[in-house]
Amino acid sequence: MFTGLSAFPLTPLDDDQLDESAYAKLIARLAAAGVDSIGALGSTGSYAYLTRAERARAATLAVRGAAGVPVIVGIGAVRLRHVLEHAEDAQRAGAAGVLLAPVSYQPLLPDEVYHLYEQVAANLSVPLVVYDNPRTTGFTFTDDLYAAVAKLPHVESIKVPPLPADPAIAADRVSGLRGRLPAHVGIGVSGDPVAAVSLRAGCDAWYSVIGGILPGLALAITRADTAAGSRAASDRLRPFWELFAAYGSLRVVAATAAVLGLTGADCLPRPLRGLDAAGLDAVRRAVDEVTAG
Amino acid sequence: MFTGLSAFPLTPLDDDQLDESAYAKLIARLAAAGVDSIGALGSTGSYAYLTRAERARAATLAVRGAAGVPVIVGIGAVRLRHVLEHAEDAQRAGAAGVLLAPVSYQPLLPDEVYHLYEQVAANLSVPLVVYDNPRTTGFTFTDDLYAAVAKLPHVESIKVPPLPADPAIAADRVSGLRGRLPAHVGIGVSGDPVAAVSLRAGCDAWYSVIGGILPGLALAITRADTAAGSRAASDRLRPFWELFAAYGSLRVVAATAAVLGLTGADCLPRPLRGLDAAGLDAVRRAVDEVTAG
Repeated sequence: MFTGLSAFPLTPLDDDQLDESAYAKLIARLAAAGVDSIGALGSTGSYAYLTRAERARAATLAVRGAAGVPVIVGIGAVRLRHVLEHAEDAQRAGAAGVLLAPVSYQPLLPDEVYHLYEQVAANLSVPLVVYDNPRTTGFTFTDDLYAAVAKLPHVESIKVPPLPADPAIAADRVSGLRGRLPAHVGIGVSGDPVAAVSLRAGCDAWYSVIGGILPGLALAITRADTAAGSRAASDRLRPFWELFAAYGSLRVVAATAAVLGLTGADCLPRPLRGLDAAGLDAVRRAVDEVTAG
Repeated sequence: MFTGLSAFPLTPLDDDQLDESAYAKLIARLAAAGVDSIGALGSTGSYAYLTRAERARAATLAVRGAAGVPVIVGIGAVRLRHVLEHAEDAQRAGAAGVLLAPVSYQPLLPDEVYHLYEQVAANLSVPLVVYDNPRTTGFTFTDDLYAAVAKLPHVESIKVPPLPADPAIAADRVSGLRGRLPAHVGIGVSGDPVAAVSLRAGCDAWYSVIGGILPGLALAITRADTAAGSRAASDRLRPFWELFAAYGSLRVVAATAAVLGLTGADCLPRPLRGLDAAGLDAVRRAVDEVTAG
């Protein structure tokens, strides 16, 4: 399950309520495009902002709309008790797997993160993706911690932060890390602009933001037959890589969803705000450019 | 209200439930010591980990136990809707003021933080402390943003991150910032080890972690007649400053509460964990040292 393109959709709000029809549309698009899995309630899916009820409802809608595509559901929360509640809800909704980032308020110690995963793993019956995202969690894994957590039951994939853009350095990093992990644990990567390089460097899965909104163009990267083809498919999306760097990927994909008519004008949870007029214009131009021809 | 020692108690848990009797004891101790205000549900009070119901209950208990000492209640959350709910609950509980940090999951932009405060201020009827704590929020204020937020209704204090330990540099910083703020907006400081210097440098309030557990020793700093007296009172607490640097202040005050018999052995919300045996021993020695004589 944890291979190829895992597409992470927005969880759109409308007037601060879950926009169920827009969410269903986003999910259906991913299923129709043939993504390898759907990552519901990831960072792009605003899991950290939503209530337990909203998350349980979104998980149910995602599984229902996925038409058999495996759905991986984010279960992160700053408190262990809430993580366990989200895991229970996700499994009840029919999640094929769950994804957990060590999200924190007080900076966590490595031992605390290990015990977090240990306790969650002991209460799961589906596979778990370990989600390392220092920018939002404030926590940085060491390779020793990856290796320890990877031995826990149910752990089947580790999502690492963006790899270096240099292919040889990225390949060294992947093979070095793979040597520390059990054979059944895959390596996934985030960081859309370096996904093509990362997959060629040996990563098994791409946990993708752009894949959640432009799945066909993302699949062109994962399904290219050659390194050159994969790189060309990635280069086509360069206008988005530039926008991600300027505005943050979440705000850009929210604007893209609005430009494509898939959500309302402003689907993010406050205090997050959509792009200003100049940003929106840039997103419109980027959409035109990457979807042309 | 936003002057002198604002003491921030733990919100102790017992078996993952609010330990109401321990919390009442902690609050009563602060009131009896004569602190200038009580900062309930601050970072030390684990606000980010607790449910709405737990926070509302803790706010009620704090006001009830404070015997007339003003209680400032933390209302932070990553989603605006939840911040407004916590503000409503805090005011209903009788909070004299509220305290808001721009806590984030996705890194916030300055404009988003401004609008957050604007919308909260528009819905308040009590004073607001702007709480700048980059270590836990991931957001760093600029002086321009301080100045803009300070003009909003109800804003009466800005809590800045720890100031430099050099008295002259700290005084420059305080007077520079004061020139940017309306006269009715005070400057508070956190960072217990530099509190003595910061108060002498012109800060109005000390939002204090150690004051929440050892209020008498903290009051000796704020009430000293001379700079030398204040410094000596701070030096007496040096064993704690060293422990804070080694383990993080929250874990140390939780251990201190346990050593003093005020809470159970492990009152923190999981995945946070108490200190190991060596850390606990060090806390015991520190308690003995600072309370001797």
